[in-house]
Amino acid sequence: MLGSFRVARRTPLLQAIRRQSTTSARTLAPVPGLDLSEAKLRRAVFYVPCSEERKIQKSLHSPADCIMYDLEDGVSLNRKSLARSLVAGALSGPQTRELGVRINSIGSGLEADDLAAILRCARLDVIMIPKVETPGDIHYVTSLVDRLAPESKVKIIAGIESALGVVNIRDIALADKRVDALLFAAEDYCADTGITRTKGRQELYFARSVVATTAHAYKLQAIDMVTMDFRDMDVLREESREGAEMGFTGKQVIHPAQVDVVQECFAPSSETVAKARRIVDGYQKHYTLGKGAFDLDGKAIDMPVVKWAYRVLHRAELAGVDGTKIGD
Amino acid sequence: MLGSFRVARRTPLLQAIRRQSTTSARTLAPVPGLDLSEAKLRRAVFYVPCSEERKIQKSLHSPADCIMYDLEDGVSLNRKSLARSLVAGALSGPQTRELGVRINSIGSGLEADDLAAILRCARLDVIMIPKVETPGDIHYVTSLVDRLAPESKVKIIAGIESALGVVNIRDIALADKRVDALLFAAEDYCADTGITRTKGRQELYFARSVVATTAHAYKLQAIDMVTMDFRDMDVLREESREGAEMGFTGKQVIHPAQVDVVQECFAPSSETVAKARRIVDGYQKHYTLGKGAFDLDGKAIDMPVVKWAYRVLHRAELAGVDGTKIGD
Amino acid sequence: MLGSFRVARRTPLLQAIRRQSTTSARTLAPVPGLDLSEAKLRRAVFYVPCSEERKIQKSLHSPADCIMYDLEDGVSLNRKSLARSLVAGALSGPQTRELGVRINSIGSGLEADDLAAILRCARLDVIMIPKVETPGDIHYVTSLVDRLAPESKVKIIAGIESALGVVNIRDIALADKRVDALLFAAEDYCADTGITRTKGRQELYFARSVVATTAHAYKLQAIDMVTMDFRDMDVLREESREGAEMGFTGKQVIHPAQVDVVQECFAPSSETVAKARRIVDGYQKHYTLGKGAFDLDGKAIDMPVVKWAYRVLHRAELAGVDGTKIGD
Repeated sequence: MLGSFRVARRTPLLQAIRRQSTTSARTLAPVPGLDLSEAKLRRAVFYVPCSEERKIQKSLHSPADCIMYDLEDGVSLNRKSLARSLVAGALSGPQTRELGVRINSIGSGLEADDLAAILRCARLDVIMIPKVETPGDIHYVTSLVDRLAPESKVKIIAGIESALGVVNIRDIALADKRVDALLFAAEDYCADTGITRTKGRQELYFARSVVATTAHAYKLQAIDMVTMDFRDMDVLREESREGAEMGFTGKQVIHPAQVDVVQECFAPSSETVAKARRIVDGYQKHYTLGKGAFDLDGKAIDMPVVKWAYRVLHRAELAGVDGTKIGD
Repeated sequence: MLGSFRVARRTPLLQAIRRQSTTSARTLAPVPGLDLSEAKLRRAVFYVPCSEERKIQKSLHSPADCIMYDLEDGVSLNRKSLARSLVAGALSGPQTRELGVRINSIGSGLEADDLAAILRCARLDVIMIPKVETPGDIHYVTSLVDRLAPESKVKIIAGIESALGVVNIRDIALADKRVDALLFAAEDYCADTGITRTKGRQELYFARSVVATTAHAYKLQAIDMVTMDFRDMDVLREESREGAEMGFTGKQVIHPAQVDVVQECFAPSSETVAKARRIVDGYQKHYTLGKGAFDLDGKAIDMPVVKWAYRVLHRAELAGVDGTKIGD
Repeated sequence: MLGSFRVARRTPLLQAIRRQSTTSARTLAPVPGLDLSEAKLRRAVFYVPCSEERKIQKSLHSPADCIMYDLEDGVSLNRKSLARSLVAGALSGPQTRELGVRINSIGSGLEADDLAAILRCARLDVIMIPKVETPGDIHYVTSLVDRLAPESKVKIIAGIESALGVVNIRDIALADKRVDALLFAAEDYCADTGITRTKGRQELYFARSVVATTAHAYKLQAIDMVTMDFRDMDVLREESREGAEMGFTGKQVIHPAQVDVVQECFAPSSETVAKARRIVDGYQKHYTLGKGAFDLDGKAIDMPVVKWAYRVLHRAELAGVDGTKIGD
């Protein structure tokens, strides 16, 4: 199916939930309105310069949740054509991961050729638009998708990389239903605002908070900045943890060595999984008894919380975190 | 009088100001447009689970500025009816404190019964609506008030507990004139956004800043999050001071032992009171001399500042802080 | 020319760029649309109480980028008339610096007389409006400018000093094309919001971030708060560095001794200048070869970046920072 998301492994919860949404499963209480097909995992968004065949080859075996073939900053100007000629091949790889392309920014003069090269590729799951400043930047892409690939189910990640992007972020988030994630790019943001990076990162806290908060307000993913020093795993771990604490759901990476640490830090924690599991178990139990909402530890558990718990278990399962089986 | 605010003690400033607004007092300069009846104190907003008679009884003697009888998270699902049957009794207690009720959130399916149980209670001073995400959540309540208790002077505290609430906060603050305070609830906010609490609390600084800033922009109160560990008075004091420093005017408490520390930390400081007193004294003196605005320490003191000073003295007096007498 | 900006020194880059925009210079590649006449420097905005002739005299020799003659908080009420009678003289001084006036706030009852006293002064480069809360505060001034001094090229600095100013800041920034800078005033902001200053300044981080971010979103300058203790140069340097790191382009000063440290901290850093210089050099080289955008360190350099580099070099040159010569 064009643009659909493939999951790496089919596990019990996943299978049960899928079954329940199509058939009348006897063993599982239904959760009206729960749609886990949207609940994709994008812990590491891994940029692969699309002008380098060797790196494209290596990316075929990357465990990153999302492989983002890059036509923008990772590709020098005199290699843009080469990169465009390689992108279709990259997008037909055997990976089960989500595959995307970062195009050049709207207004760069390069974006039309980028989109022409990718929009008809069957395995284009997501387009990352860098330097989004207005809803118009999103509309430019979606109108081309509508025209050139009307059957496409491609999603959009909007890169927030400037002060104007931060100021307009609500309108950007709401520009089109295909917007699926907001992403914060620190390097370009600093260049735009004159902000100077410090070790403590406090100078970026405001912009990162705006991005994460707005993403959650509209049920989008929030993808944090790159850790530029790809050799320092301690800094990477510290920044990843901080991003997860701030509510980011994933992080951009520029080097294969960064993928594992990032994916570990952005997986649901075992405490969260245990809590979600208790809620789902409680829901299954009380549903059998004919009740709707129910109490857990003296607190009423209602439908939004039940759905949250299912989503956590789903994400944990996709991430390979233990303790996600239900009903045993 | 329905829903009016009772003050604990009538003190000189209070009496003088009240007198001056109704009669032509000779000893005090009038302050046109000053309305201190709105300047209520809500340092500690103390939640009392309305399903527990013993706790309701104890609350009758609480020194908390605002007693908030809870029908929501503090009451398990199978006790909601019991809580509703007790709430009218709780609201007819002999307290001079402000009395309010936290209803279940709009859309929970419980809110209509909650409101039906409380709207005609004479001593319902304030309704706390949790998980407000849009102005519509406020309008749901105000339109019921208009229909069921058109004479009511009940105020509304809007609970901001989600990313969408933060993003829509301006519209929420302006939804109805009865909105009197914005309140930040950390636990639900973290569940909604995936934010993880840390000891330093920096992960909540953004959302708390948005709540406090928006509240002040529209002359509303700003009520800070609960300190969950009710045994650790050091953390409570630290969080209370930080909240006051950030501009919050009060804080939610879940345990009687938290009330005193919170009310101490959110009372006007003696420096602030001393400054306000000098301004009021200066105003009185210069008014006698036939002048409007006047200079203090080489800075022009105009009407907004004079009113600010009166409000500080009024709050200090309500809080029992020393040094608030004028004219001696 | 009315209200135009004078630069202290004419240096090679400046001359070359000026030449190139009017003539067809052979030695320099043209940069279409680059307008450096707007790129003024306002590192230190130095308040001079306009009621004190001695301080006005001293200000004639100040190295501050912007001398702001103050009619507001620095002038007591009974000296406002005196200050207005001195302001025209102050504005006809021999300085090459930018000259401005801080008027009293809109609604104070003093602003009309202030504007009447200054609008026809030829050397009025900029008006600082304090306590701006709505676009209407800007419109009040611009409509008077249009009526009383239709030929004026005066710019406006909007002072953000209240929670409502922060909440309305986008509309304020966009109120009129003459708005040239947003300025954050900490003392009044704290009085309005109840925020208490701490040594770490974290309580002001949110409001300062909003001001700096909004300014950059609309290509305005962002001017940071005063450091009140004018004797402590260490704190001044620390606050100045922090402001520059956050993206502020300048800072208010209240004492002559603060000017040098501030101007040093808000000058472009030598790293930034070196980077800008490499970009400009690269652009000149590649233009000769008939190319438009070009690669530098494997990254495509496009027109916005080239313009940014020119602006940095221009600012560095105005600030007297070394390493700004090109083409050698």
